[in-house]
Amino acid sequence: MADHYAPSRKDGRPEFIPAIRWEEPPEGPVVVLLDQTRLPAEEVEWVCTDAPALVQAIQTLAVRGAPLLGIAGAYGVALAAARGFDVEEAAQSLATARPTAVNLARGVARARDAHRAAVRSGAGEKEAAAAALAEARALHQEDAEAGRQMARHGLTLLDELLSGGTHRILTHCNTGALVSGGEGTAFAVALEAHRGGKLRRLWVDETRPLLQGARLTAYEAARNDMPYTLLTDNAAGSLFAAGEVDAVLIGADRIAADGAVANKVGSYPLAVLARYHHVPFIVVAPLSTVDEDTPDGDAIEVEQRAGHEVTEFAAAQLPTAGAEVGGGIPVAPLGTQAYNPAFDVTPPELVTAIVTEQGVVSPVTADALAELVARGSGGGAG
Amino acid sequence: MADHYAPSRKDGRPEFIPAIRWEEPPEGPVVVLLDQTRLPAEEVEWVCTDAPALVQAIQTLAVRGAPLLGIAGAYGVALAAARGFDVEEAAQSLATARPTAVNLARGVARARDAHRAAVRSGAGEKEAAAAALAEARALHQEDAEAGRQMARHGLTLLDELLSGGTHRILTHCNTGALVSGGEGTAFAVALEAHRGGKLRRLWVDETRPLLQGARLTAYEAARNDMPYTLLTDNAAGSLFAAGEVDAVLIGADRIAADGAVANKVGSYPLAVLARYHHVPFIVVAPLSTVDEDTPDGDAIEVEQRAGHEVTEFAAAQLPTAGAEVGGGIPVAPLGTQAYNPAFDVTPPELVTAIVTEQGVVSPVTADALAELVARGSGGGAG
Repeated sequence: MADHYAPSRKDGRPEFIPAIRWEEPPEGPVVVLLDQTRLPAEEVEWVCTDAPALVQAIQTLAVRGAPLLGIAGAYGVALAAARGFDVEEAAQSLATARPTAVNLARGVARARDAHRAAVRSGAGEKEAAAAALAEARALHQEDAEAGRQMARHGLTLLDELLSGGTHRILTHCNTGALVSGGEGTAFAVALEAHRGGKLRRLWVDETRPLLQGARLTAYEAARNDMPYTLLTDNAAGSLFAAGEVDAVLIGADRIAADGAVANKVGSYPLAVLARYHHVPFIVVAPLSTVDEDTPDGDAIEVEQRAGHEVTEFAAAQLPTAGAEVGGGIPVAPLGTQAYNPAFDVTPPELVTAIVTEQGVVSPVTADALAELVARGSGGGAG
Repeated sequence: MADHYAPSRKDGRPEFIPAIRWEEPPEGPVVVLLDQTRLPAEEVEWVCTDAPALVQAIQTLAVRGAPLLGIAGAYGVALAAARGFDVEEAAQSLATARPTAVNLARGVARARDAHRAAVRSGAGEKEAAAAALAEARALHQEDAEAGRQMARHGLTLLDELLSGGTHRILTHCNTGALVSGGEGTAFAVALEAHRGGKLRRLWVDETRPLLQGARLTAYEAARNDMPYTLLTDNAAGSLFAAGEVDAVLIGADRIAADGAVANKVGSYPLAVLARYHHVPFIVVAPLSTVDEDTPDGDAIEVEQRAGHEVTEFAAAQLPTAGAEVGGGIPVAPLGTQAYNPAFDVTPPELVTAIVTEQGVVSPVTADALAELVARGSGGGAG
């Protein structure tokens, strides 16, 4: 089945397996996900035939990353429409599958609104479904384009902020092709630097508890032949102290109107370390991550996840015992209570710059951010 | 075999299994270690009949923690002497088994010097071995006593620094009975607070990569019925931001003459976070941890450990595949390079206080520290 998101290399091996794609086999349309919980051990696809399957994939983090969640949500609505399920019900369950990333609810809303508009204008079921799918595809394309623009703006910013020509970038969690319709956010900037011969080192935080850095960012860095080194999250302090970090680049799950950034837990300690060591702390995220309805960091709801993510080690390769709470190997005494927020919030005063597809906000203020959002919605790539 | 370090409870179950003990079965003397790599899944003892076995136990972290390493080193010398091996050779290999903890080399030197002195004064082999053993036992007892004093001084300091009566303490790595001849350093302070009804919460950093917090501190906290919660190291930032941490208490592997503290990697980021949030950052360590020959933090050699501790997950329960580098389950792509320092260094200006068995140094200055060391070596407990 032809799919322009998965070009084949000359040796027949796919260049990369896309994080998400829409397919229409004879049995009916499906959303196919690269199951990110199985990486890097296995490249396994997860085929969703309805919205509940997609909700499950979202909740188990088989599909994750703020921009990609938006795309997944939109395709989920399109899938429900194409297969004749209740579109409003599907949209509702998809939009609330995880609370923190604003992109998810927005992606869902775009496809749902396209569907609603078609229905209102008298379109039949099939036509309305096509409208929802067209909107999902548009979002997918826009995200890929936004990634290209962020990479360009981000690298320009790095070159301005840093002397020396080549950059040692510390990143956290995973922000590459696995989280987006294109090449991602923060990772895309590092990749752009690498392609221009300007990446001296990519320091990859392993990102506990789910190890998205070790499993996913290292996987993407290796696939792109980038010079990268993995570290435990708590070893970043030593790197800063040794002067080995020129800039921190992270993504965002939600940006409040005042510029406060919710991102993977562990981002805030990096922001504090960066400030202490006078190192730029740069957030790279599409404008769709900015939530004008959330006034500040205190208003951001942070998802608390199950304690067994911390108290047990789980891996695709493990023969899951089944007896334990989360099916993994316990690394703490049974009965241990864990504090497991999925995200933390970095206040705007610790953020050197926010890089979007429309340009850079620096210093980060509510007014500058609002202006960029207004410019973004007024036209341009989206 | 009677052993006052392992009192039995009424139900016949040992109250706790000591981290280290000397035994003299008919086959000859041995050093018995609780294998800390197998905790909390299994309580397995490791019986060492010679110094090389003890060196292996030290290098694989079956026995660990600065004060306990000193005791292990001293017993190792006594073991070599009692079994008629070359004492100087054993002392040399034990002293250099790991580079960062000064206590190890010091414990070794004490037993070796006692042996040398006995030999010089004309003692026979058996008598000299007894002298080495007596010195190791003395060190063991002194460490237990030092722990009691540190716990007392530490709790007094907390009560002075903090209002509210009950304390929420964040700790890193493992600093309890498993690292000492008694109840430990930082953990002993938290335990003292708990016994006095003053511990509101013990926040336990899991402490990647080897999870000493999740495996060992949680094990000790659970055994002592303390109110504790486990977290990933990178989640500490959220706790600070939420005002949930009243003080950070950590141990030390080496303290330089200027007060710079080498401790488990991840300590320095906590110090920076504590400073940013105006939370006391308190180091609890016996005076034997202070190395007057190391002028400052830059002079501290930090052990770099194998990358597979980061790129693989290893657990006692795992059927080790054998094919992989470290025998664990890979969590990163094969061939991934890792940065894996065992320790980091916190400069004295970020340390609110150093609590020793002889009293508290605060503010931390070279002069104040030197004075305490002089007082300690002039008499007192040790």
